[in-house]
Amino acid sequence: MGEFDLIDRFFHRPARRAVVGVGDDCAVLQPTAGRQLTISTDLLVEGRHFLPTVDPYRLGHKALAVNLSDLAACGADPHSFLLSLSLPESKARPSFLKPFSQGMLALADLHGIELIGGDTTSGPLTIGVTVLGEVPTGQALLRSGAQEGDELWVSGTPGEARLALEVFRGKLSLPESGFNTARLAMEMPQPRVALGQALRGVATAAIDISDGLIGDLNHIMAQSDVGAIIELARMPRTPVLTVQTVNVQRLCQLAGGDDYELLFTAPPDRHDVVLAIGRRLGLKLTVIGRMVSAEEGVRVRDEFGHPIDLGDYGGFDHFKAE
Amino acid sequence: MGEFDLIDRFFHRPARRAVVGVGDDCAVLQPTAGRQLTISTDLLVEGRHFLPTVDPYRLGHKALAVNLSDLAACGADPHSFLLSLSLPESKARPSFLKPFSQGMLALADLHGIELIGGDTTSGPLTIGVTVLGEVPTGQALLRSGAQEGDELWVSGTPGEARLALEVFRGKLSLPESGFNTARLAMEMPQPRVALGQALRGVATAAIDISDGLIGDLNHIMAQSDVGAIIELARMPRTPVLTVQTVNVQRLCQLAGGDDYELLFTAPPDRHDVVLAIGRRLGLKLTVIGRMVSAEEGVRVRDEFGHPIDLGDYGGFDHFKAE
Repeated sequence: MGEFDLIDRFFHRPARRAVVGVGDDCAVLQPTAGRQLTISTDLLVEGRHFLPTVDPYRLGHKALAVNLSDLAACGADPHSFLLSLSLPESKARPSFLKPFSQGMLALADLHGIELIGGDTTSGPLTIGVTVLGEVPTGQALLRSGAQEGDELWVSGTPGEARLALEVFRGKLSLPESGFNTARLAMEMPQPRVALGQALRGVATAAIDISDGLIGDLNHIMAQSDVGAIIELARMPRTPVLTVQTVNVQRLCQLAGGDDYELLFTAPPDRHDVVLAIGRRLGLKLTVIGRMVSAEEGVRVRDEFGHPIDLGDYGGFDHFKAE
Repeated sequence: MGEFDLIDRFFHRPARRAVVGVGDDCAVLQPTAGRQLTISTDLLVEGRHFLPTVDPYRLGHKALAVNLSDLAACGADPHSFLLSLSLPESKARPSFLKPFSQGMLALADLHGIELIGGDTTSGPLTIGVTVLGEVPTGQALLRSGAQEGDELWVSGTPGEARLALEVFRGKLSLPESGFNTARLAMEMPQPRVALGQALRGVATAAIDISDGLIGDLNHIMAQSDVGAIIELARMPRTPVLTVQTVNVQRLCQLAGGDDYELLFTAPPDRHDVVLAIGRRLGLKLTVIGRMVSAEEGVRVRDEFGHPIDLGDYGGFDHFKAE
């Protein structure tokens, strides 16, 4: 059985939403009147975005999750996706493709989306996903709408994925239960799709934290022409992070990426509306700072109100050589 | 200058058609009333879809061309595209990215489309392109519409790209001018977009020849539930192909892929309409056979009307080890 038959065996399902799905030169979609199309693509490379030892089920989940996270950051309703796979011979087998497809399709089912096309080739393990979504016309959340005076919010407890990465790098050790939690954040991120949808018309700007909080905040600042002040004491922390050294805590919170929480801004008069959204979704939403004028740039203040040096926390470096 | 800045430097242009283009979590597009969206993706891997020695300008051209070819096969009007790049350090440099982007953007300009998003990472050289197009609702050319009695047409002179590949493989030598022509077919394929558009409402089924004529014909046959008879004597040939051995000619014509001509079917009473399209576009369009019942399968007859053995010509194998 060749790689194409295997892909077909594990991934093929009849099209439900697409006019034409997998199996023609193009997929054909019927746009919905009054809605705009949102589209994003991410490429995951072995050794860079995931470790060669990662469980295939989790890898399938994550490859789709990081793309759904981009839709979430735009407040879009997920619609469908395409999958490009470059597979070495050792992976073009049911032992890899079966759990990989199960992880990916379980997440697809959770969000009611379907695979509408893709490409398969042999080569180094590389996973390309393109996701499509829809938003009511003009309601996409962008990076460019933040205003001076807006509150800066974050979902969940970012930093866990980076903590796991530091363990994999041999720089840190954690008790087993703490490591398992952190590893789950890194390997099975939950895209905040429902949050993004709920924030349409409420948030002024949003981005998903893929490259690190400060790095991603920089994108909002640059595109909205604002600055930001973050109060470190307000940043939510899980117990396992709380017991780390101050340096590790800051690294994980400020430069940690890859756990795909949403960072967003909203006017102070929408504070209670945002809190209510968090309660409804069972998701912790925390104000960690506020937006200031562009001239003020970005400042992070420690527990005593002193600004800390952000030199080390500019962005997330995945598995880049250090 | 990092890889991201380089990408920005060589690829960034202001969005003209997209509501939101490069630089947010998603691109946002406004669908056109009365039209459907077509989408396709292809992943090109070094050593598999292109040689490491290929000229970067031509590589940029080809990576987009093979995707536009999928739109052409659906009769779609190209709209926009996304680019995912995995780059080794040796390629994350202006010496590669400048000509690569020039080749890609020159073809994009030719078809009036714009880059609306993508992803860049370090890793083995891998190029993922996703193209979007539009067709009037219900008018996409599919693989599934061929009817018994339809004529089988091909554009251009397929086989040249395979001829060049055989030279690169050291299995064949060609005079310099012949090699240059064949190499151009392989490295700078011209997607038949205008032909696909003109065939809307005329052709009953279409596919682009990426994997070899017989292999791609098999897709039309399977999805339309028909068979086909091809007359080898009718197949168009360039002079350089004509002087090859019979075996090489058949290999290139029947199993040669990668030159992205269109293979399509149309009712005999549209024969003159198709010829007129070819004249208008300055593109050779040739009837090479006809569609028969599914029970008859596929047969290729030689100059004397004898069926030839298709065992060797089932599909195109790119650079797979032989």
